[in-house]
Amino acid sequence: MLKPLGDRVVIELVESEEKTASGIVLPDSAKEKPQEGKVIAVGSGRVTENGERVALEVSEGNTIIFSKYAGTEVKFEGKEYLILRESDILAVIS
Amino acid sequence: MLKPLGDRVVIELVESEEKTASGIVLPDSAKEKPQEGKVIAVGSGRVTENGERVALEVSEGNTIIFSKYAGTEVKFEGKEYLILRESDILAVIS
Amino acid sequence: MLKPLGDRVVIELVESEEKTASGIVLPDSAKEKPQEGKVIAVGSGRVTENGERVALEVSEGNTIIFSKYAGTEVKFEGKEYLILRESDILAVIS
Amino acid sequence: MLKPLGDRVVIELVESEEKTASGIVLPDSAKEKPQEGKVIAVGSGRVTENGERVALEVSEGNTIIFSKYAGTEVKFEGKEYLILRESDILAVIS
Amino acid sequence: MLKPLGDRVVIELVESEEKTASGIVLPDSAKEKPQEGKVIAVGSGRVTENGERVALEVSEGNTIIFSKYAGTEVKFEGKEYLILRESDILAVIS
Amino acid sequence: MLKPLGDRVVIELVESEEKTASGIVLPDSAKEKPQEGKVIAVGSGRVTENGERVALEVSEGNTIIFSKYAGTEVKFEGKEYLILRESDILAVIS
Amino acid sequence: MLKPLGDRVVIELVESEEKTASGIVLPDSAKEKPQEGKVIAVGSGRVTENGERVALEVSEGNTIIFSKYAGTEVKFEGKEYLILRESDILAVIS
Repeated sequence: MLKPLGDRVVIELVESEEKTASGIVLPDSAKEKPQEGKVIAVGSGRVTENGERVALEVSEGNTIIFSKYAGTEVKFEGKEYLILRESDILAVIS
Repeated sequence: MLKPLGDRVVIELVESEEKTASGIVLPDSAKEKPQEGKVIAVGSGRVTENGERVALEVSEGNTIIFSKYAGTEVKFEGKEYLILRESDILAVIS
Repeated sequence: MLKPLGDRVVIELVESEEKTASGIVLPDSAKEKPQEGKVIAVGSGRVTENGERVALEVSEGNTIIFSKYAGTEVKFEGKEYLILRESDILAVIS
Repeated sequence: MLKPLGDRVVIELVESEEKTASGIVLPDSAKEKPQEGKVIAVGSGRVTENGERVALEVSEGNTIIFSKYAGTEVKFEGKEYLILRESDILAVIS
Repeated sequence: MLKPLGDRVVIELVESEEKTASGIVLPDSAKEKPQEGKVIAVGSGRVTENGERVALEVSEGNTIIFSKYAGTEVKFEGKEYLILRESDILAVIS
Repeated sequence: MLKPLGDRVVIELVESEEKTASGIVLPDSAKEKPQEGKVIAVGSGRVTENGERVALEVSEGNTIIFSKYAGTEVKFEGKEYLILRESDILAVIS
Repeated sequence: MLKPLGDRVVIELVESEEKTASGIVLPDSAKEKPQEGKVIAVGSGRVTENGERVALEVSEGNTIIFSKYAGTEVKFEGKEYLILRESDILAVIS
């Protein structure tokens, strides 16, 4: 298992698809959009200058939207993950 | 639903129009102006170095003016949104 | 009404004129000088890392001198305003 | 009157002259030296991240040495002033 | 023994190998991947602006993933080590 | 008298000389070395974000070594001084 | 004696040598390695924004590894020293 440090999260990419009006699924070619991911593991949070650790707002299982180009790709036990800082996460989809 | 993180807000763009003195509506062509938006969702606020979370000044339903070029475009359930940091918001229109 | 956020203020530009010794009013052509403005609305102040909100030093109705090129132009209900951060204000004229 | 904001001060330039050994006054041509000024008005001080306002060390009437090129020139009621941040002041002459 | 200072850790590189589907071990040629290391020694942690020392999240013996190009190579008693800051560590493998 | 502000000090340069093994004094031609100075006056110290003023570590009369190129030259009552920040001082010679 | 200020230390360089497998001592030609030094004197530590002084982790007599190119060379009473900030020290050798 990967346990991220500080304010980091480990995510799996969620492939997004788009349907045309007629329902045909087309692969997404818009490269500039933020991406979706699923949170696999969360860190224990950053420590403020006051010495307090701030728990993350996201938790395991959340589906999130994050800034494209953010994070570092990691391959672990044959699967691809991305390790992001929470500040690169824009929103949680609920 | 999109739940933004930290000091972020989700907004919908408000198209602005301008009337001439005679009341004819002309599309706005001034590209350099700040833009208007309507707040759809707000984050729970940033955490200061003292460990306190600071609630946002804007709330759902507010109409705001924000810095052009700020934020990230997000398409969610077929609609376009913009995710901004509160610091990119100049003023609330009331 | 425009309600600025944080440490921002909304101002109206004050056109400055200069009189010659003989009292003839000449339009000001010195482009490098700071500009004068009148404060129309003030934000509720920035929040320090200690979690305290710091009230602005300027208030509605003040005439101020501010750094040229600072701020963002905003057109609202047919009038031009400028939205500045308080740190761009040099002095209050009293 | 000009009331500077935060940690700013309003000063009047003090023209410096230099005497030769024989007492003849020569205009100063050394452009690289710091300049002298007289403090006309002081701000109420910056606010620390702890929320405390820090009074300035200089006060009205002080003669100071400041970093050349610092500050903004302001013309007010026909006179020239300079608005500096206190951090641009090197020393008080007493 | 090497005792790292502050928020630093001393690590030994872990050579990673990849198996093909048929089980043949191939040397890893992907130069852009984060690297694995084993923690040999940890510092006593950084000191916050509040004056508190923050213990590291990793401890001796942990296997970690860290940002490629991070850290400084050190040769000590004939062996190669890398000294990293904890912030360059992405995750602990457990 | 010059009273420096904040964490500044006023120093006089100390000309350094070097003796050869045989005791002949040669003028120093090494331009890259830090320089020596004697502290003439000290400021009252910087104010931390907690609102506390931190007294300087050096005091009047100390001989110090400081970073070359640091500080601002000031001519006062016919003598040359240098105004430094305490952070440009490397060590006190005692 | 040299008393360094703040979070600085005074060190003497330790020349490192390398033996070949057969025991012949060769001068070290690897210019990119961190260097070893011996701590001669330590400062009283930096002051945090909370107003607390943080004692250094290293002490007189410690042998340390530090970042190459860090620090300032100082010649004092005929001997060469290096003045470093503690943050340029990677580890203590014990």
